[in-house]
Amino acid sequence: MTVSYNLDVSSVSFLNFFKVIFRWRGSVWKSVWSELLIWLICYYIVMISYRNIPESTRLIIKEYIDPIDDQLDKAVPLTFMLAFFVSIIVDRWKNTFANMGFIENTALSIASVVRGEETEVVLARRTIIRYLVLSQVLVFRDISLRARRRFPNLEAIMKSGFIQEHEIVELEKVSCPYNKYWLPINWACSILHKLFADGKISAAPLYNAAWQEIKTYRTNMANLCNFDWVPIPLAYPQVIFVAVRFYFFMCLFGRQHLDLNEKKSIDYYFPILTVAQFIVYMGWMKVAEALLNPLGEDDDDFECNFLIDKNIATGMSIVDETFNKFPEMKKDMFAE
Amino acid sequence: MTVSYNLDVSSVSFLNFFKVIFRWRGSVWKSVWSELLIWLICYYIVMISYRNIPESTRLIIKEYIDPIDDQLDKAVPLTFMLAFFVSIIVDRWKNTFANMGFIENTALSIASVVRGEETEVVLARRTIIRYLVLSQVLVFRDISLRARRRFPNLEAIMKSGFIQEHEIVELEKVSCPYNKYWLPINWACSILHKLFADGKISAAPLYNAAWQEIKTYRTNMANLCNFDWVPIPLAYPQVIFVAVRFYFFMCLFGRQHLDLNEKKSIDYYFPILTVAQFIVYMGWMKVAEALLNPLGEDDDDFECNFLIDKNIATGMSIVDETFNKFPEMKKDMFAE
Amino acid sequence: MTVSYNLDVSSVSFLNFFKVIFRWRGSVWKSVWSELLIWLICYYIVMISYRNIPESTRLIIKEYIDPIDDQLDKAVPLTFMLAFFVSIIVDRWKNTFANMGFIENTALSIASVVRGEETEVVLARRTIIRYLVLSQVLVFRDISLRARRRFPNLEAIMKSGFIQEHEIVELEKVSCPYNKYWLPINWACSILHKLFADGKISAAPLYNAAWQEIKTYRTNMANLCNFDWVPIPLAYPQVIFVAVRFYFFMCLFGRQHLDLNEKKSIDYYFPILTVAQFIVYMGWMKVAEALLNPLGEDDDDFECNFLIDKNIATGMSIVDETFNKFPEMKKDMFAE
Amino acid sequence: MTVSYNLDVSSVSFLNFFKVIFRWRGSVWKSVWSELLIWLICYYIVMISYRNIPESTRLIIKEYIDPIDDQLDKAVPLTFMLAFFVSIIVDRWKNTFANMGFIENTALSIASVVRGEETEVVLARRTIIRYLVLSQVLVFRDISLRARRRFPNLEAIMKSGFIQEHEIVELEKVSCPYNKYWLPINWACSILHKLFADGKISAAPLYNAAWQEIKTYRTNMANLCNFDWVPIPLAYPQVIFVAVRFYFFMCLFGRQHLDLNEKKSIDYYFPILTVAQFIVYMGWMKVAEALLNPLGEDDDDFECNFLIDKNIATGMSIVDETFNKFPEMKKDMFAE
Amino acid sequence: MTVSYNLDVSSVSFLNFFKVIFRWRGSVWKSVWSELLIWLICYYIVMISYRNIPESTRLIIKEYIDPIDDQLDKAVPLTFMLAFFVSIIVDRWKNTFANMGFIENTALSIASVVRGEETEVVLARRTIIRYLVLSQVLVFRDISLRARRRFPNLEAIMKSGFIQEHEIVELEKVSCPYNKYWLPINWACSILHKLFADGKISAAPLYNAAWQEIKTYRTNMANLCNFDWVPIPLAYPQVIFVAVRFYFFMCLFGRQHLDLNEKKSIDYYFPILTVAQFIVYMGWMKVAEALLNPLGEDDDDFECNFLIDKNIATGMSIVDETFNKFPEMKKDMFAE
Repeated sequence: MTVSYNLDVSSVSFLNFFKVIFRWRGSVWKSVWSELLIWLICYYIVMISYRNIPESTRLIIKEYIDPIDDQLDKAVPLTFMLAFFVSIIVDRWKNTFANMGFIENTALSIASVVRGEETEVVLARRTIIRYLVLSQVLVFRDISLRARRRFPNLEAIMKSGFIQEHEIVELEKVSCPYNKYWLPINWACSILHKLFADGKISAAPLYNAAWQEIKTYRTNMANLCNFDWVPIPLAYPQVIFVAVRFYFFMCLFGRQHLDLNEKKSIDYYFPILTVAQFIVYMGWMKVAEALLNPLGEDDDDFECNFLIDKNIATGMSIVDETFNKFPEMKKDMFAE
Repeated sequence: MTVSYNLDVSSVSFLNFFKVIFRWRGSVWKSVWSELLIWLICYYIVMISYRNIPESTRLIIKEYIDPIDDQLDKAVPLTFMLAFFVSIIVDRWKNTFANMGFIENTALSIASVVRGEETEVVLARRTIIRYLVLSQVLVFRDISLRARRRFPNLEAIMKSGFIQEHEIVELEKVSCPYNKYWLPINWACSILHKLFADGKISAAPLYNAAWQEIKTYRTNMANLCNFDWVPIPLAYPQVIFVAVRFYFFMCLFGRQHLDLNEKKSIDYYFPILTVAQFIVYMGWMKVAEALLNPLGEDDDDFECNFLIDKNIATGMSIVDETFNKFPEMKKDMFAE
Repeated sequence: MTVSYNLDVSSVSFLNFFKVIFRWRGSVWKSVWSELLIWLICYYIVMISYRNIPESTRLIIKEYIDPIDDQLDKAVPLTFMLAFFVSIIVDRWKNTFANMGFIENTALSIASVVRGEETEVVLARRTIIRYLVLSQVLVFRDISLRARRRFPNLEAIMKSGFIQEHEIVELEKVSCPYNKYWLPINWACSILHKLFADGKISAAPLYNAAWQEIKTYRTNMANLCNFDWVPIPLAYPQVIFVAVRFYFFMCLFGRQHLDLNEKKSIDYYFPILTVAQFIVYMGWMKVAEALLNPLGEDDDDFECNFLIDKNIATGMSIVDETFNKFPEMKKDMFAE
Repeated sequence: MTVSYNLDVSSVSFLNFFKVIFRWRGSVWKSVWSELLIWLICYYIVMISYRNIPESTRLIIKEYIDPIDDQLDKAVPLTFMLAFFVSIIVDRWKNTFANMGFIENTALSIASVVRGEETEVVLARRTIIRYLVLSQVLVFRDISLRARRRFPNLEAIMKSGFIQEHEIVELEKVSCPYNKYWLPINWACSILHKLFADGKISAAPLYNAAWQEIKTYRTNMANLCNFDWVPIPLAYPQVIFVAVRFYFFMCLFGRQHLDLNEKKSIDYYFPILTVAQFIVYMGWMKVAEALLNPLGEDDDDFECNFLIDKNIATGMSIVDETFNKFPEMKKDMFAE
Repeated sequence: MTVSYNLDVSSVSFLNFFKVIFRWRGSVWKSVWSELLIWLICYYIVMISYRNIPESTRLIIKEYIDPIDDQLDKAVPLTFMLAFFVSIIVDRWKNTFANMGFIENTALSIASVVRGEETEVVLARRTIIRYLVLSQVLVFRDISLRARRRFPNLEAIMKSGFIQEHEIVELEKVSCPYNKYWLPINWACSILHKLFADGKISAAPLYNAAWQEIKTYRTNMANLCNFDWVPIPLAYPQVIFVAVRFYFFMCLFGRQHLDLNEKKSIDYYFPILTVAQFIVYMGWMKVAEALLNPLGEDDDDFECNFLIDKNIATGMSIVDETFNKFPEMKKDMFAE
């Protein structure tokens, strides 16, 4: 579920700062703590091993690994890589969200042009909405594990009411060997044309307007599929993810105090700056990881199932329950 | 209220520079001074404590914390993080502003296609405008604390005249369990269709054009809700905010002069560069914090309540007061 | 006036390089020279003061201010701040320019749908164009000092012919307490509808098309107002401007040669690198300052007054002088 | 073929991390291993040569090449260049993908406006779809080596059924000396107009709507050609590619241990950090190289041939097999 | 002429790498070699001068200029400036290219709505196309030196057939004191309306659709003019260009070996790293210079004259030669 925190940042103040910092769900703390713990355990194992070997050996080891820490930052330019990678990912994340498919415009359009309160017209409007959401369900199943879990097969969709038995038959009858997300849309268009032919849509421009809204909705779904089909090239996140992990793996060895005769700094007991660095970089990378697949199962990922339910309820309400209704018009207060 | 300063920067000059620098409302000074004061107090407390402990202890402490300052910048890459984070936030802020919902286009469209000066047609036009602004009020209440304070409940909205009593009843009758921002829009669409059916709109393309404008307005409102529903993932601002504060917390200790026998620099008495750094980074971060929720209560945040009042006044003026009026056409000066 | 230099860069060559470099109007030299001079004077005052105090004092001072220069770059990350700020500003500048309001499309649209060469139809077309430009004049007055100076009040606009006396009366009669830029547009729309009702526009889709162009033009004007109403949050330019000036203020002291026994470098007589840095950073910041208010009075700012004159002349020519005219069609050379 | 890995990143966890890291197809490992191997071989050849020359000579060499490594990073700012170059390339890659030409919208549009199930109408719809895909085939042949290999000449296209013999004659008869990708589109438009003239499209707005969709599809194709015609200026990738290779070429010499009396670090035996750097920078550059021509033959490149097959199958299914079909409408479960 | 190299990068391989690197036309080598040569000559002149002055003088000089090289990179942050400047320029370059004006859509639109094969209708269609390209010729003349050279005056345009004698008379008769690029468009619109009035365009929506395409084409032309009218503010490229040249000018002196008793590095004979730096930074800047005026005369600039010829040939072919023609429709292979 998406984590909302806007009220906490409605104004800039110290209190709000703490409200934002100490949230847990979807927080950097939650995403970082387990790996930080593992890293710390490894760090102390290495530290204890080092301190228990003879000094002469230790000094030789020190010589061997000392240059690592000096050159690590040059070899692995984490800031650059993370900053640019996150920029690209955030862009993609925004686009994905903009294409999630919100039914209101389409439903309002259909309600505005398909007129009539006869049972079959109402049913036609309802069915169009249902087909649109059905298409969304089919798409979400393929790109979101959560939706897949909710709708493991067509039968589960049928039980939820988005598809009916004879529709499954029709769906499976179509021979096209590629995905069939477009089929429910095609059904919706066919119904729309029948309504037009039957005179329930009074003019061609209105038929066209409704069709355009359905097209926009379908394009959203197609874009989602395309984002799924063609992700950021694998090598890019690989480079980033490996670089961050390699960096902190090397820190396990390079940030140790090997010459026990040296002056002791605070890092002698607890690597406070490396831990800070771990939280910052790892947290930053976790942001990237979480955004990489915005339809996944992280705290911050989009709620596909919620959207499906909202779409069907809102859509039905618009084309049926509240169709053609408006309160009696009375004189308003703003007239002088 | 938004802080306007464009006249001050109409040309590049020294004087204008000072005009911009010494503004208070919405300024970096206003947002930074309190935390800077707290930080300075802490800094001097730490300084005095240090200087009052025995030298030997102090030198040991020095050894312990000396490496902190050296590595702090590497561990916490503030410039990178702030620069990229602010870029992303500014982008979002611009989008939010572009979706605030300005009624002029919709009102002009309705005035252009819904013709007639009979009382009921005028009332219909007025009611459509009122419903559009009502939808905006409902949305703003949920995403802006200021609007919420002005309209704590439906009754307050009723008293302001945006909704009427029997409309509240209708609103609450609708069973849809999700938000109902779309309902007033739906009412407006229904009225629009009635006007079309009654022949007040002379052709389908014009009905369609008005509908498109209402849709655009509604899409703006829906986008605002979506920006509120799906913010930048929490972990991102958390990482940034914690990093900045951690950095300056560490500076409290790492930027002290512990070896009193060392040469004294200007920092011995007043940490001028760290204060400059504090203003710059903290100010930069405050920009990010303020932009993060542009509908909040900072000096620079968008004025929801002003916009609501402007929309209702302008909209009503367009569809009623100035409807179908234009000055007598006379020969202009530009004709040869 | 905007400074054009495209012909100078039509190809990459040494000569073109010098042509670009040694321009004065709108150049970095022009914007930087005065502050550079002031800075240099201050620098030499500080230098002379230093060299005239006893050496012992000077060395103590040296100790005090030496660390400044070392840490200044860390404390004030000018490159980052300027680079990102300029990016954001350039984006806004582009958007402003794209919304300046060019009348050609609207005028061509009106000429294409409002047919007829009778005096009153021609007058109607002319009046619509005049109202559109009038709206632009009203907007420009509020956001550009140059336009304000040309049109200090409504009377000045009247003398230029953009508004007529009885129109001022109408304008002032409208009670809306907010800006009334939309009113001339509303008049234009009303005239357009009258033409449609009188059969001068032959079909609803054409009426709609003309209306859409007027809307696009009005949206441009509204966007300009919005850019003016909601600038980049004040704190952002403040942080940048203060940081740059603080940086060079500190350089006055930190870049001096205090230990006269040290080896003399070229900086002993003239701080060549600091001057280079001053030109680069200051010039960069001046770009940002100049772009911050693109409707201001800098050499590079958009020419509001020129655009107004061009719009009225071109618009009138399209809807009147060249209306419905085209040369006799003759066989062209491209037919085989 | 595009490499999909979204399911592996559906949530942020350690396991998923490894799934992403250890993929081979399209991975950074696959793209980097061969050059890394060559580099390592060269590195060890240089190392062995060095160690087998007399110490005195070696120390002179050391003097000569020591400054290289120190200044290499300043001379060749790889991080900056790669980060910005990849940003620009990713942007272009996204645009290319968005213009690949997906037929669904066009096909649905044609199915929605061209009504009739008579053989010749069905054939007309099928032919329009075929011509659209034919245009795509012609374009893809010119910009994608894979498509070119599948369709080496018009005859191969004919055998695949996208073009027919008499159509090749027509195609070759047209005298236009430039590319003729637009010709099949022109045929499709002509057929569309014939359908309109024959009354198979019931109204001008619908004819227009279908035409707009065909235009959108054609514009996609034209954009692809334009991306191919005007690539990123050659000098930009050249600078980047040369810089990266020059950097690692210099590392062959600059990262050697020449003074064998110096303390031995881990780099004495294996240049672990340089190898890490090689993987990171080279991998990053490989991302850029792969994205530079997204229609090429890398693992991650778009699958032109797959898209052609999908388009023809889906398009035909929409305008013929599933045309005007929808399941019987039955009461749904969402009605209360 | 634009330099195409896409086939060379169709897959990532070593061979392709070399193909890209060793191209000459439009390459970084071609743009950098002459200035590099000049720089090297200067460098060696300075070097020889240095080595021929007495050692004592030389060491004093050394003292004077030594600090330059250390601080040069701080004073002139080339990487930042170039990276961000190139980003902004690339964005503008893309926009320019997108607005070059491709006639296909407009021509297809006119062919789709203006029906009839009578001589005068065909001539009307041809004339509209010619006027559109004429407008492009007029615009290109003003913004591209190459187009200006091909069309030095109206007569040259007339000889090429884009304008006819009596049209020049009409063009010069119009009194508008500003540019008249819109006039041929206005003629085209007037012809279009005449066709509509004569019943050659069957419905208002189709007239409107064709008009919209002409508008889109004209907007492209207007955008090109605007890009030319309002370039990136002069101070920005000035700062960049001066900074790069100043940097390498200082390197002439700062990168010399003045203390001949120092250990000799490879830079003693040939400044290999400075040369590498020169190629990288200068090449990067040359990319910026070349993109700054994409309609100029560099190898990589857009081919205005080619586009004009292609537009007239393709446009004429669409509206005349291939008008209303399509091959006989036969059953395709994809039907089962």
